[in-house]
Amino acid sequence: MRIGMIGLGKMGGNMRERLRRAGHHVVGYDLDEDLRDVGSLEELLEAIDNDGLRVVWVMVPHGKPTRSTVEDLAELLTEGDLVIEGGNSKYTDDLELDALLAPKGIGYLDCGVSGGIWGLENGYGLMVGGRAEDVDKAMPIFDALRPEGPREEGFVHAGEVGAGHYAKMVHNGIEYGLMHAYAEGYELLAAKEIVKDVHGCFQAWSRGTVVRSWLLDLAVKALEEIPDLDGVSEYTTDSGEGRWTLEEGIDMAVPMPVLAAALFARFASRQENSPAMQMVAALRGQFGGHAVQM
Amino acid sequence: MRIGMIGLGKMGGNMRERLRRAGHHVVGYDLDEDLRDVGSLEELLEAIDNDGLRVVWVMVPHGKPTRSTVEDLAELLTEGDLVIEGGNSKYTDDLELDALLAPKGIGYLDCGVSGGIWGLENGYGLMVGGRAEDVDKAMPIFDALRPEGPREEGFVHAGEVGAGHYAKMVHNGIEYGLMHAYAEGYELLAAKEIVKDVHGCFQAWSRGTVVRSWLLDLAVKALEEIPDLDGVSEYTTDSGEGRWTLEEGIDMAVPMPVLAAALFARFASRQENSPAMQMVAALRGQFGGHAVQM
Amino acid sequence: MRIGMIGLGKMGGNMRERLRRAGHHVVGYDLDEDLRDVGSLEELLEAIDNDGLRVVWVMVPHGKPTRSTVEDLAELLTEGDLVIEGGNSKYTDDLELDALLAPKGIGYLDCGVSGGIWGLENGYGLMVGGRAEDVDKAMPIFDALRPEGPREEGFVHAGEVGAGHYAKMVHNGIEYGLMHAYAEGYELLAAKEIVKDVHGCFQAWSRGTVVRSWLLDLAVKALEEIPDLDGVSEYTTDSGEGRWTLEEGIDMAVPMPVLAAALFARFASRQENSPAMQMVAALRGQFGGHAVQM
Amino acid sequence: MRIGMIGLGKMGGNMRERLRRAGHHVVGYDLDEDLRDVGSLEELLEAIDNDGLRVVWVMVPHGKPTRSTVEDLAELLTEGDLVIEGGNSKYTDDLELDALLAPKGIGYLDCGVSGGIWGLENGYGLMVGGRAEDVDKAMPIFDALRPEGPREEGFVHAGEVGAGHYAKMVHNGIEYGLMHAYAEGYELLAAKEIVKDVHGCFQAWSRGTVVRSWLLDLAVKALEEIPDLDGVSEYTTDSGEGRWTLEEGIDMAVPMPVLAAALFARFASRQENSPAMQMVAALRGQFGGHAVQM
Repeated sequence: MRIGMIGLGKMGGNMRERLRRAGHHVVGYDLDEDLRDVGSLEELLEAIDNDGLRVVWVMVPHGKPTRSTVEDLAELLTEGDLVIEGGNSKYTDDLELDALLAPKGIGYLDCGVSGGIWGLENGYGLMVGGRAEDVDKAMPIFDALRPEGPREEGFVHAGEVGAGHYAKMVHNGIEYGLMHAYAEGYELLAAKEIVKDVHGCFQAWSRGTVVRSWLLDLAVKALEEIPDLDGVSEYTTDSGEGRWTLEEGIDMAVPMPVLAAALFARFASRQENSPAMQMVAALRGQFGGHAVQM
Repeated sequence: MRIGMIGLGKMGGNMRERLRRAGHHVVGYDLDEDLRDVGSLEELLEAIDNDGLRVVWVMVPHGKPTRSTVEDLAELLTEGDLVIEGGNSKYTDDLELDALLAPKGIGYLDCGVSGGIWGLENGYGLMVGGRAEDVDKAMPIFDALRPEGPREEGFVHAGEVGAGHYAKMVHNGIEYGLMHAYAEGYELLAAKEIVKDVHGCFQAWSRGTVVRSWLLDLAVKALEEIPDLDGVSEYTTDSGEGRWTLEEGIDMAVPMPVLAAALFARFASRQENSPAMQMVAALRGQFGGHAVQM
Repeated sequence: MRIGMIGLGKMGGNMRERLRRAGHHVVGYDLDEDLRDVGSLEELLEAIDNDGLRVVWVMVPHGKPTRSTVEDLAELLTEGDLVIEGGNSKYTDDLELDALLAPKGIGYLDCGVSGGIWGLENGYGLMVGGRAEDVDKAMPIFDALRPEGPREEGFVHAGEVGAGHYAKMVHNGIEYGLMHAYAEGYELLAAKEIVKDVHGCFQAWSRGTVVRSWLLDLAVKALEEIPDLDGVSEYTTDSGEGRWTLEEGIDMAVPMPVLAAALFARFASRQENSPAMQMVAALRGQFGGHAVQM
Repeated sequence: MRIGMIGLGKMGGNMRERLRRAGHHVVGYDLDEDLRDVGSLEELLEAIDNDGLRVVWVMVPHGKPTRSTVEDLAELLTEGDLVIEGGNSKYTDDLELDALLAPKGIGYLDCGVSGGIWGLENGYGLMVGGRAEDVDKAMPIFDALRPEGPREEGFVHAGEVGAGHYAKMVHNGIEYGLMHAYAEGYELLAAKEIVKDVHGCFQAWSRGTVVRSWLLDLAVKALEEIPDLDGVSEYTTDSGEGRWTLEEGIDMAVPMPVLAAALFARFASRQENSPAMQMVAALRGQFGGHAVQM
């Protein structure tokens, strides 16, 4: 199948490669001249005609870059063509992007993609939102990108437009919680005098235990590469999707204490001197006569 | 009334003073010769006889010092005398201490005391556990120590032996949560560009609002004394009673997320580099190709 | 001073009354003919001229009703007049409302009001955002509404437009945390066998303790009126400002675990069967052979 | 190798079977006559001599049953023999049990076992605490019980006596957090109108995503067996190890907000009417004039 890929960064570049390995004809466009196959969107669209069907995968930063790309495509594509937003758009953006294309008969799918740098070899987990007929058109692409094995173990048509990014957002929210659960356990094990082999404990959980997972395997690998995580900074950023998920929890009145805890710990990791704890320390000084450290 | 006071530190010394101002005859004993009125427990007991009733208030560090003091008193006191444990004993210790005295007919009361350095002038909030007849014997003492006003607004016979310290423990657990609630609000206000007078906001809450409290008044005072809390360290210790309260919550299957959050924030305030967040950072490095800061 | 008051519900009506008691001439307008003093906005404006200055206090539901009221006022008022938004608008709305009025030279203040049904007698805590010259114009109103005593203990000019509602929002966020801190302590005390007088414990904290507050007094009152809170439903709504505060925490990267816990507990109080806990129960059934209750 | 197995319940019985399949000669004892191979401990010990080495695996309920079993073994075994405590003892119990045996030269190992009902086929994850020479003696047993593959992926000598159960305890604490992370995500997805296939989303995460794990596979299975978890009760018990882990966190000053959240949610799942939320509802009634639902 002929496919246009806009955005050839770390993710987009790897996906182009995986699609090509599966026999698809992928034409890439990027602002970076060293990465791209063609010099303009127009050239790209000329090169990807499948008997009247043109499919463009958009893989640029979410927000303005994605919106302006889809606006350009709305001008250039025609009825029956298909845009797949594979970046990290918020699901509310999908509704707006679809509204740009639908009046012209151009299909829109949002596709949440998981797998990171491992996806090129292992395949990507794909969560798709949109209309069934558009999903059908793009299925050869999804089949090439997802991991080998049964389709339903690496792909889902999650629901209406936005549902793909929504599912990916929730996936990331879960990920925050999972990571922090392992992290808490790591800290407790590492703090306990009688425990002599923390790395060994994590590794011993790899096969027969309830907590085995891919993240556990990565934790084992990290402890192998950096014994005792010596010198690793606690400073941790957050990418936006954790925040969105928590905001959705608030909006939908769904209690999400685990996600909240994981997210707040990241916020705190970036503070040198917590203003809240300054206040607690100052209050203790007021009522208890505890000396306040300056 | 004649009263023996063992332990004349910051709290015990102030309480001796408040009792004396109320007209009681207080005889103090302490290991520190500069503080004490008499040189031995025996001398103390000789000096506090009230027509056959001797009442000793114990105000020494909890744990071993309190236990060994009560053991000594168990040898020296006789049937009908009364020991009041006014320190910070865990309620489970009260049961053991009472078991030392009860067989000899010596009464035991546990008394949780709140008020800190302000108690000398304002009076102390008192929570008492024990038998009703023992509470009656000691009522003149409690009336002198508690704040002026209706007795029930500064004193309670909370229940059986241990209930006084239990109520004080819960009081402290609540205190942790209250302090952190104000602290979170402080941090958010202080972070917001459009808010220009954070101290003024706290002060404006002093009279007409739902959040007015003594702790709020202390926060206002702290912000007056140290504008923007500049230079205050986030480092905050915890005294044990917050931990005990959370452990009780676990033991009684009572969800206590607010207390837990406040306690964990204190733990974190003492960590330079959170091992848990090191693990989160390392995991992100593994799956996302995010550079790990060293 | 002559003042227009739009919105004469529970809050607006009481505020009109308190202003009148202070000697102000308040003219009220409401959709409800039984409550209002005049039949139209035009009549209202005619009746409140202070030598060229007209001040209108808006006290209608936030969102559309507030916006449409301010749009009407933008048509009717002229340069130098003043609108005070005293309802529960989100601070972001204030920026939009001010933008409607500022081009015409009409002043805008946002005023967060705390005090609930007690404000009529006790006075209201007031947090104001806007320009200093507008604050000066309205000061007689604020002085009448706030509690007696020093102005700064019941009033603050918190900052720029929006800062008043922002401070009120944070106030409410703190309130959520405070309430839940007391509530956790209540549950633990009530669960403990040796504690016989939970109401008495709360009451004994009223004067000499670290946790004394107005909310504590209300808790004492509630326990007096409904012993053991027998028959009170756990079902608790949330008003929006708690959610906004938490969303701001997320947006500003301020950890707010106490507020989050309090808010999530309200969400959970409204669920008959938690879907999350259904999943936990189902998972336990899968790996442990634990029977799943249906 | 000849091995004695005391306790032939669900876990012990399966472990006997797995050891036998690996060619070991296992002699089992249980209070239940239908399950056991021999009628007394004495008979058991006679039947398991390996040229002077007798190894007994204890698999009875923790607390008193385990202690009394080890006390009996302390009388019957002799220098050089070995006891392996494979149940769910708290690590502090291990220190006491070892102290019963060490003076007589009898070895003691504590072994945390994960794997539940799946262990018979898949093998068990094993975490062992004790002296190296004792671990060496028992290695053929551990190799038979653990999953196939590299030893270190299903077995660890975690540290000193107690470290095995400590690691297992932390493993369970992590498990609580992981389960709740998935559960929160499930609830949010299930609540969102645009998402039409929640089961499909979970299943699509099985292979290529960051959140893939054995627990995820179980969640998929649960959603297959009980669509929408219809009729599953939220009521969830907790086994003790989650509580111990949180208590250790408190004791070691390690913040564990994720575990705490997961544990508290279980507590709450068993409450019909939360007393804490009754208090919050009553407080709202007091200050806001909100009607209190009865």
